[in-house]
Amino acid sequence: MKLDIRAVVMAGGSGTRFWPLSRANRPKQFLPVTGRRSMLEETVARLRPLVPPRHIYTVADAAKTQTIVRLLPRLHLRNMLVEPEGRNTAPSLILVTARIHAENPAAVVVVLPSDHLIRDVPVFLRQLEAGCRTAAERRALVTFGIPPAFPSTGYGYIRASAKPAGRTGGFLFHEVESFEEKPPLKKARKFVRAKNYTWNSGMFIWRADVFAEKLKTHAPAYAPGWDRMLAAFRKKRRRAAAAAFKTLPAKSIDYALMEKASGVLVFPARFGWSDVGAWSSLFDIWPRDGRGNAARGEILAMESEGNLVYNPGRFTALVGVKDLIVVATEDALLVCRRDADQKVKDVLAELKRLKKGSDALFSGRGTPGSGAAPGPGR
Amino acid sequence: MKLDIRAVVMAGGSGTRFWPLSRANRPKQFLPVTGRRSMLEETVARLRPLVPPRHIYTVADAAKTQTIVRLLPRLHLRNMLVEPEGRNTAPSLILVTARIHAENPAAVVVVLPSDHLIRDVPVFLRQLEAGCRTAAERRALVTFGIPPAFPSTGYGYIRASAKPAGRTGGFLFHEVESFEEKPPLKKARKFVRAKNYTWNSGMFIWRADVFAEKLKTHAPAYAPGWDRMLAAFRKKRRRAAAAAFKTLPAKSIDYALMEKASGVLVFPARFGWSDVGAWSSLFDIWPRDGRGNAARGEILAMESEGNLVYNPGRFTALVGVKDLIVVATEDALLVCRRDADQKVKDVLAELKRLKKGSDALFSGRGTPGSGAAPGPGR
Repeated sequence: MKLDIRAVVMAGGSGTRFWPLSRANRPKQFLPVTGRRSMLEETVARLRPLVPPRHIYTVADAAKTQTIVRLLPRLHLRNMLVEPEGRNTAPSLILVTARIHAENPAAVVVVLPSDHLIRDVPVFLRQLEAGCRTAAERRALVTFGIPPAFPSTGYGYIRASAKPAGRTGGFLFHEVESFEEKPPLKKARKFVRAKNYTWNSGMFIWRADVFAEKLKTHAPAYAPGWDRMLAAFRKKRRRAAAAAFKTLPAKSIDYALMEKASGVLVFPARFGWSDVGAWSSLFDIWPRDGRGNAARGEILAMESEGNLVYNPGRFTALVGVKDLIVVATEDALLVCRRDADQKVKDVLAELKRLKKGSDALFSGRGTPGSGAAPGPGR
Repeated sequence: MKLDIRAVVMAGGSGTRFWPLSRANRPKQFLPVTGRRSMLEETVARLRPLVPPRHIYTVADAAKTQTIVRLLPRLHLRNMLVEPEGRNTAPSLILVTARIHAENPAAVVVVLPSDHLIRDVPVFLRQLEAGCRTAAERRALVTFGIPPAFPSTGYGYIRASAKPAGRTGGFLFHEVESFEEKPPLKKARKFVRAKNYTWNSGMFIWRADVFAEKLKTHAPAYAPGWDRMLAAFRKKRRRAAAAAFKTLPAKSIDYALMEKASGVLVFPARFGWSDVGAWSSLFDIWPRDGRGNAARGEILAMESEGNLVYNPGRFTALVGVKDLIVVATEDALLVCRRDADQKVKDVLAELKRLKKGSDALFSGRGTPGSGAAPGPGR
């Protein structure tokens, strides 16, 4: 059976943890923090062997969609779905799945965040294909769980059956027993020790028609909206689809459907993953010199080690400093202890409070739609 | 007796200790590091009550003189003496003193570096005037010694008579017994304990005719050159004066004359002085916030203390960092431990060796004459 795979790239996120490089209208997915291209471009590029450009969809608000058009000129404009307003992930994924269902109910929908790093792309593609095959053959909702590297309190967890439920293309999968909220540290430690917990990666796979069935059975509040959307897309009435979108409860897909549905399967990811959550996470991604300094832009490090520098196009000299994050942009400079980079969000909060300098310091400038409502978080 | 006071501002120095703000063609005296204006402008401005602009002279090479013209449009072009080549301070001071001698042999010449900070300007002016009066009345070479704040190994020292030789305008002065080279630490400590040692400030006062006499008696190698220069200036033949300049031994005025002459007098300075030798010295000069951070440019300091930031026109956020020097310019960024700023010169040496980026990183750019020979050091 030849699968009709459609990839949905979720590009609506609006983080500012990469301030001062990221701003409200220039979130992580639009920044070249992991490679030479933006994370969004990398996300689409790595799908190439599996999904042709005409089968790649994006979901974001109108302002971000303008940036997507600019970054991904080879994608089809009609596949760039615009969220009429921010309503979390469930309405957005119902929107795009209904759209794909109108084209082919048997199509397999792969939902991917646009701002994650995949280290081993060949394995990623093979496991993704295995996931697609499993979702189609088992008529299941499929997700990927990241084997936890440490007891993180920053991710949700997926509890899986201790024994595998099957194997596809050499990759084991398990039944999902429950989705767990971001835990406190003690609980996170327990999860990690228990072995059958993985981090919720936000990656999902489903056949469009199976999604529709599960939605009607397990999330009936969304059923009328789904029907209206599907009817609208069949008649190519985008405005009617947008109107239906606004009637849907604003919840995450995890909460609205995944944790309520039966027969959800999870693949423990084998491809090396990072959500690149803050500047310090780049320290494990960028190449480092002999003294453990990682840099974008030319640096001279004297008696300095363990520093991360982002200052492309300009020269940086480090003298006698250790374990710093140094980020320079045209209008702002951040110098931060490497283990304190979670506090960057406090800088932003303080900036907003004081409206220091200009609002551009947190909202960004020179990019269309900087005043638009933020897209839904995940 | 009304004194005819002429001030000579030595502006030829070419330091790069304020890199990346300072470059070979943009040394400290041209930078606004102590106040809103360049140190050169501050030096001239503070003389205003004592010396009219038409009696202020500058000495520097051709390239730096172009900058001086731009920074000090109120000074007289004909008073900006150009060193035909770098030959240390003795030839330069002989040149300008000969020029003033040609105008009035009884004029009192006050020699001032252009890159020092004076904290108490009223006292400075009163003590300077007392020095002028003493130099005229006693027909002496006069200098100012800085009471040492610590056993510095970076300055030369002046050993004075234990007992004062006199008092003018309420300021005591002593006879100079010897000039001491920059000492090793042990010797520096001895000097500081001995009480009758002061730092050599590079500030001198003499009557033009007394200087001529002392030169002939104590530095006869300079006498023929002096005569040629004086004759040239009397005939307003600048080119002949420049030719004579090139025949003079390239030595510092301290070594060529001051330490050989008899009857040299020293005033212990009472006006608060700093040679602003490196970034960390600004820490005691700029205002500091409650956590001891000093900044040019807007900063937000979170859990950060004791930092010095120069980043005017842009915003700087500090997070969890301590005792750093952070300097950002258009093309370069320095992040340096505060007690390691003497190593900035090593960065420059390394940059020169590697010719990293572009030569502009050490020589500067966009300023005329960046390739000119450096002016004499002091």
